[in-house]
Amino acid sequence: MGINDIIHDGVSIKIYSADEPDKVVIHFNDDITAYYKTKKAIIKDKGIYCNGISSILSQAIKDGGVPTYFIRKLDENEQLCYRVDVIPLSMIVRNVIAGSLAKRLGLKPGTVPEMTIYELCYKSEELGDPLINDSHAVALGLVSADELQQIHEMTRKINGIIRPMFDKVGITLVDFKIEFGRMPDGSLAMADDITPDNSRLWDKATGLSLDKDRFRHDNGMVGDSYRSVYEKLKSLSETK
Amino acid sequence: MGINDIIHDGVSIKIYSADEPDKVVIHFNDDITAYYKTKKAIIKDKGIYCNGISSILSQAIKDGGVPTYFIRKLDENEQLCYRVDVIPLSMIVRNVIAGSLAKRLGLKPGTVPEMTIYELCYKSEELGDPLINDSHAVALGLVSADELQQIHEMTRKINGIIRPMFDKVGITLVDFKIEFGRMPDGSLAMADDITPDNSRLWDKATGLSLDKDRFRHDNGMVGDSYRSVYEKLKSLSETK
Repeated sequence: MGINDIIHDGVSIKIYSADEPDKVVIHFNDDITAYYKTKKAIIKDKGIYCNGISSILSQAIKDGGVPTYFIRKLDENEQLCYRVDVIPLSMIVRNVIAGSLAKRLGLKPGTVPEMTIYELCYKSEELGDPLINDSHAVALGLVSADELQQIHEMTRKINGIIRPMFDKVGITLVDFKIEFGRMPDGSLAMADDITPDNSRLWDKATGLSLDKDRFRHDNGMVGDSYRSVYEKLKSLSETK
Repeated sequence: MGINDIIHDGVSIKIYSADEPDKVVIHFNDDITAYYKTKKAIIKDKGIYCNGISSILSQAIKDGGVPTYFIRKLDENEQLCYRVDVIPLSMIVRNVIAGSLAKRLGLKPGTVPEMTIYELCYKSEELGDPLINDSHAVALGLVSADELQQIHEMTRKINGIIRPMFDKVGITLVDFKIEFGRMPDGSLAMADDITPDNSRLWDKATGLSLDKDRFRHDNGMVGDSYRSVYEKLKSLSETK
């Protein structure tokens, strides 16, 4: 397959235009950064694990009836996706209190809220990706009220699909971040990969993190943790 | 009427227990502060104007069918209210972009958003009154999801009642902040005064601020502006 010009040169993924103009190739690499890119490293085979995890989850999300830009896994490090106009919003889903939220609201990390917490952030490096609410998102002209409702609904469905998958393999899906975009036909779709780079995954048996927090906090075994998440999810999809 | 012990010793209001245990007396005084109380002054007769404005607006809100802790104006500086358990949430209503929101989201002050913006803040001095969303408020245990829906509905109704009152007297109600509480019987009610101390009011003819921004930005004529707001609203209620 022919790869053309690079569209997005990110830390952990690079996006290339594909042969067909409405599609892109996403390449997952081994770079990892934290704390606004002040901490950097290379984790061997992280790209393979993240592409594997993302492909399994995206396929399940698609099978569950939620539109996603994901088409199919191409090879170990790459997947084929639709080319979308990404909406500058991040949706954060929090099944368990952790990270910045615990500090911001004075809540105890590890607390399971009665209801899942959904947070919307405005993706603006200049403004520091501020937390916003629904009325801000509409006032900013990022989405219509109707689109936002669709995004909320899709997000709830996505959590309802992937949280039990992690449960089944002994992992708590603490939180994750996703973004959405407009497909070539204008309809909305998830336009993101879900990996241990942008989620918190806790081993139910040991309580240990299996995600980027291991890198943030110098806990070591980063690659091994990502690999174990990939292998567990893979075994799940193979036994289906 | 008998005034007993002081319940709340605030900057611009003091709350005393009334003879009846389910009621309180709110006394409006002439003190004004800004920037976390680093800037202070006394504005002659501000208490009279704020009590007058608050009483007219609260009566209209009550007449409009929205529960409020306001019972009646007692005299120039005081009003009688129900004793409520105040919920540590502030609801900010923004009909026009101004102040902190403009900075936070990079929006132009004076812009009128297509839909009114509603912001929820968690009242916690320790945490700096952070902006939160509905799912945070429920997760924090501050309100039930049902109570929050009632608060949103009451807030929309309050804005729908007072915004046209200001319009009629040539003032744009740019934004205001209100709080809610639980009445002696457990039901929800607005538990706040709406005055130029906690709202933005722009003269439609001149574009000038008629609120606390005059004090914040050293524009002078603070008392005169508050008095003009009071007199305009008073003339409105007298001609009804």
